[in-house]
Amino acid sequence: MMYFLDLFGTAVFAVTGSLAAARKRLDVFGVMVVATVTAIGGGTIRDLILGVRPVFWVKDTNYVIVSVVAALVTFVAAERYKMPGSVLLVFDAFGLAVFTVIGCEVALRESAPLLIAVITGTMTGSAGGVVRDVLCGDVPLILRKEIYATASLLGGVVFVAARSAGAPAWFPGCVAGLVVLVVRLAAIKWSLSLPRFIARNR
Amino acid sequence: MMYFLDLFGTAVFAVTGSLAAARKRLDVFGVMVVATVTAIGGGTIRDLILGVRPVFWVKDTNYVIVSVVAALVTFVAAERYKMPGSVLLVFDAFGLAVFTVIGCEVALRESAPLLIAVITGTMTGSAGGVVRDVLCGDVPLILRKEIYATASLLGGVVFVAARSAGAPAWFPGCVAGLVVLVVRLAAIKWSLSLPRFIARNR
Amino acid sequence: MMYFLDLFGTAVFAVTGSLAAARKRLDVFGVMVVATVTAIGGGTIRDLILGVRPVFWVKDTNYVIVSVVAALVTFVAAERYKMPGSVLLVFDAFGLAVFTVIGCEVALRESAPLLIAVITGTMTGSAGGVVRDVLCGDVPLILRKEIYATASLLGGVVFVAARSAGAPAWFPGCVAGLVVLVVRLAAIKWSLSLPRFIARNR
Repeated sequence: MMYFLDLFGTAVFAVTGSLAAARKRLDVFGVMVVATVTAIGGGTIRDLILGVRPVFWVKDTNYVIVSVVAALVTFVAAERYKMPGSVLLVFDAFGLAVFTVIGCEVALRESAPLLIAVITGTMTGSAGGVVRDVLCGDVPLILRKEIYATASLLGGVVFVAARSAGAPAWFPGCVAGLVVLVVRLAAIKWSLSLPRFIARNR
Repeated sequence: MMYFLDLFGTAVFAVTGSLAAARKRLDVFGVMVVATVTAIGGGTIRDLILGVRPVFWVKDTNYVIVSVVAALVTFVAAERYKMPGSVLLVFDAFGLAVFTVIGCEVALRESAPLLIAVITGTMTGSAGGVVRDVLCGDVPLILRKEIYATASLLGGVVFVAARSAGAPAWFPGCVAGLVVLVVRLAAIKWSLSLPRFIARNR
Repeated sequence: MMYFLDLFGTAVFAVTGSLAAARKRLDVFGVMVVATVTAIGGGTIRDLILGVRPVFWVKDTNYVIVSVVAALVTFVAAERYKMPGSVLLVFDAFGLAVFTVIGCEVALRESAPLLIAVITGTMTGSAGGVVRDVLCGDVPLILRKEIYATASLLGGVVFVAARSAGAPAWFPGCVAGLVVLVVRLAAIKWSLSLPRFIARNR
């Protein structure tokens, strides 16, 4: 079940990566690369940091196949059909929730400290998008715009808290995923964003 | 033999990295860094992904030495002499072919799936150039311009196909390298590029 | 002792990361991410390259905690107080010295070749700043402006030379750190920079 949600999240992230790449006038190969990096980049960095080797998509190539297929479908379909941006944002929030939970799980399975589990959860959800924006020559969106990674961070905290409180196995993932989803959708609906500051230094 | 081709490819990639860095007005240290990253970056990411550790140039420092020397020679020579761009492009195509074959080989040696071998082959050939462009603040050239990584991808497919068809040991590398070289040189000669698309979404 | 210097260097680098992120109008989460990446990014890349796993801050979460706290304090304080830029530059030079020495130490502990120790020393000191600038959409400062990574490189050479000359245990670190500090402070004071070149090629 979790596995299929994971592949679904991978496909959604690949679609957002494809669209970002297309806006930058990349060719079909570039679109595939950016889509795949967006979809599996976060989990890759997580596995490298935790020392899981080889990284997850070397062991299970379905992740790569799903990414590439999603990119190609987007490439072909996007010229013909217009998907409402709001549908994509909801799917993306769903992917963020799933990836957060998986990122926390992997860290705890590797017996990393709880703080690290929160970080790798957030990383799994967000780092792919950061790499996507860097490849596209943009300052990463999730570091600037409305609440995104913060939703993932909150979900990670809830997951780790529920897990260390000894909740039954299915509980932490469900409630943490729900937290991510609700916070992210609320952020989209009301354009919530975090405060910024203007440095007076230097 | 393959080892010397590999070092030759490393030197060529370091030269292209130096020239890119120089165009961005980096200092001599920056030129050395960008040159080295261009030359050994692809193989480094491959080794990290596959879980080969430490990465290849920690075990054999000749790769670093060749990169740094090539960068310094370029730094000194480029102010005095003008190397025809076309010569450099042919050398670069040659480096791409060698790196692709080595990238496939390493993955199969680590008993990774065939799809992964194709990916690490392409990665070894192209990822160094992607990191070079990101460091120089550009959207990676190989994701936008005429066929480059795609040549490497085709070579990887040929390599893996020939190897799994049980071809004699020397065969897959030679034919795959030739495919990369021919496709890449044809792309340069006739400015072949892949299709792009304009997203209507978002 | 070295451990506290290390945490101090981490805090200083996090402060420079925060200020860079703030100038780019990132939100408080973005500031924390960029600060943390600046502070622990160099050591992370070093550990990945050398095959140390998991990376250092997964084993000892104090590095992350120090980074996040330093970022938050900067976030709050920077709107109210103005820290003289020169003080920050001196602290930063100090952090560079400490990180260089630690980077060399880790490589030698992993019995990497001497050349690699020099590289990982420089990497530990400088790579975090490179990633910071890439995330902020800038061509990395240390590859363009006055001598920075070169100070670290010189310190690394001195460290490795002193260590292989069989100096007593405390000596290489102290003298190498001093070299980094002196060269870097001199570079700031007299705006020393390395030569550049204008490529005639391509």
